[in-house]
Amino acid sequence: MKALVYKGSKEVELTTLEKPVLLDDTDAIIRIVLTTICGSDVHLVHGHIPTTPGYALGHEYVGIVEEVGSKVKQFKAGDRVVGPAAAYCGGCERCQKGDIMHCMNGGVHGSGQEFGGLSGSQSEYMRIPYADVNLVHVPEDLADEQVLFVGDILSTGYFAAEKAAIEHGDSVVVFGAGPVGLCAVQAARLFLPSQIILVDIDPYRLEVGARMGATHTINAKEQDPLAVIAELTKGKGADAAIEAAGAEITLQQALKCVGLCGRVSLVGIFGQPVSIPLQEAFMKNVRIEMGLSYLGNIRKLIKLIQMGKIDLTPMITHRITLDEIEKGFKMFEQRTDQVIKVVVRP
Amino acid sequence: MKALVYKGSKEVELTTLEKPVLLDDTDAIIRIVLTTICGSDVHLVHGHIPTTPGYALGHEYVGIVEEVGSKVKQFKAGDRVVGPAAAYCGGCERCQKGDIMHCMNGGVHGSGQEFGGLSGSQSEYMRIPYADVNLVHVPEDLADEQVLFVGDILSTGYFAAEKAAIEHGDSVVVFGAGPVGLCAVQAARLFLPSQIILVDIDPYRLEVGARMGATHTINAKEQDPLAVIAELTKGKGADAAIEAAGAEITLQQALKCVGLCGRVSLVGIFGQPVSIPLQEAFMKNVRIEMGLSYLGNIRKLIKLIQMGKIDLTPMITHRITLDEIEKGFKMFEQRTDQVIKVVVRP
Repeated sequence: MKALVYKGSKEVELTTLEKPVLLDDTDAIIRIVLTTICGSDVHLVHGHIPTTPGYALGHEYVGIVEEVGSKVKQFKAGDRVVGPAAAYCGGCERCQKGDIMHCMNGGVHGSGQEFGGLSGSQSEYMRIPYADVNLVHVPEDLADEQVLFVGDILSTGYFAAEKAAIEHGDSVVVFGAGPVGLCAVQAARLFLPSQIILVDIDPYRLEVGARMGATHTINAKEQDPLAVIAELTKGKGADAAIEAAGAEITLQQALKCVGLCGRVSLVGIFGQPVSIPLQEAFMKNVRIEMGLSYLGNIRKLIKLIQMGKIDLTPMITHRITLDEIEKGFKMFEQRTDQVIKVVVRP
Repeated sequence: MKALVYKGSKEVELTTLEKPVLLDDTDAIIRIVLTTICGSDVHLVHGHIPTTPGYALGHEYVGIVEEVGSKVKQFKAGDRVVGPAAAYCGGCERCQKGDIMHCMNGGVHGSGQEFGGLSGSQSEYMRIPYADVNLVHVPEDLADEQVLFVGDILSTGYFAAEKAAIEHGDSVVVFGAGPVGLCAVQAARLFLPSQIILVDIDPYRLEVGARMGATHTINAKEQDPLAVIAELTKGKGADAAIEAAGAEITLQQALKCVGLCGRVSLVGIFGQPVSIPLQEAFMKNVRIEMGLSYLGNIRKLIKLIQMGKIDLTPMITHRITLDEIEKGFKMFEQRTDQVIKVVVRP
């Protein structure tokens, strides 16, 4: 089958891999209907996340079940499904504590042996371990594109908003208007803040953010975010901040922009140690949450999409076929052509 | 009246100040029965906390009510009382949200105009604002020394343990066996962890810590704390860590020593920006809590002392009179004579 493979030396290549087969009686094989290119793919290719070459990339998907192992009870061939970017077993010590992101038997799809060696979605077929635990049926009334992001960036945006502990009427700042930041805007909105202030340096992304629910946008190339946030919050500072850019400067701004008892939620990936103004944060009693996203909310997120409370389709800027994915990857990597999210159909 | 005053230039002096008087009808004047020398006093004198000279130091006290304002209903002359190091009004916007540590009308006793200009306890008398809100009666069956620390270091240790979200059976690490760290050990114990691992470089303090509830002690001059903690937790890392030393190295160790979904609680004071290994903490989903302690638990802490669950008297190493306080301050500041906590009787 065709698959986009990480070649090493920061290069990807559309090539041919063996079609995955059932390895376990709890596995399912799905045919990919729709997938994406994700920021994490770029992190892998650029070496921000440790990996070794030779595997298919991709971990956001909508698929059709082709074949299931003998112990899979909830799914059959022909079912339309989505699932988490990182598969988990549901039964280990960590899963039982709710920490499915550190499952002892799982792995991240399309991330190489370092993360479990699970097959990637930028391909024609994928093997899903613990299919009954991981897969979720897609309701008939929802289109593929509507649910495509539930298993990764939407889960991440929702996790970021939950960890920011947003209360009704709060002022929330989101740093970074990339796909995760935009998902965080949509998720933050569910907790009824009075302000969602979105900070980025790309006017187009900020415009999309405003369409997706940001009440205020700040172009950090033109305005000092801290000054504008102070003004918008009448000097009190924000109640919560979500860092979805992964830069030291935005982390520092997130800690500085919140007021007393502010919550800072980190979902951006940091490649190296960062210096933080701890004394200031200390005096304000800031709480910092961070980490790999909880991916167990897929059913809840699908319900919210059905309710019309979440719509991520405005961030889809490009629709391509798998044959065009090398070009699409280059565009996404270099952020050309006002790309936000690329949808790929095998 | 006699009082220990911050003179400026890192010097203190026992001198004579005017006896405080009622300024408001919700005030009380108390006669100091017992007070302490606290690490925060040293932070003030050393310039780690901004201040200007000329005020009486001290903020941990047991007192006898001398006189109350016309609106004080719960206290009368002769009552034996304790109260928080930082007084609060109970009625402002922040207090109503439970954030009494940032009260808009309060202040920190014995910390100068920068923190509300409230009188200090290293003196013969003190003015307590919002007396009905701040003061707490001391039960007859408890000695002065038993309750002396409730309003500051014990509240801080309890806050640190609460923010570390210790669950039954957890492994907890406390960095710093100073007065706050030792209080954190006692508070951590209330949540029934299986291990309380105390890290310091002073063998005497570690010995006192073991007597006060630490199940393991690590002298960081002799052993690598991270290696020992990894061994004690069978490679899983600690469930929670409390940083009560205020040093960059111990903060970094706190972040490194915890395992998956670890909680790190910071109560040490950091004078400058610190560099933290964020990627490692991120991959573990670490939560960091920090800040000024909640001082509204005094009644609860007194109850725990009555129940025999908390006993801080082992950390009292010196008992002096107010006339000897200059010498006592010097000893505490320079950590000579195996000093941990100095109790001062005017």
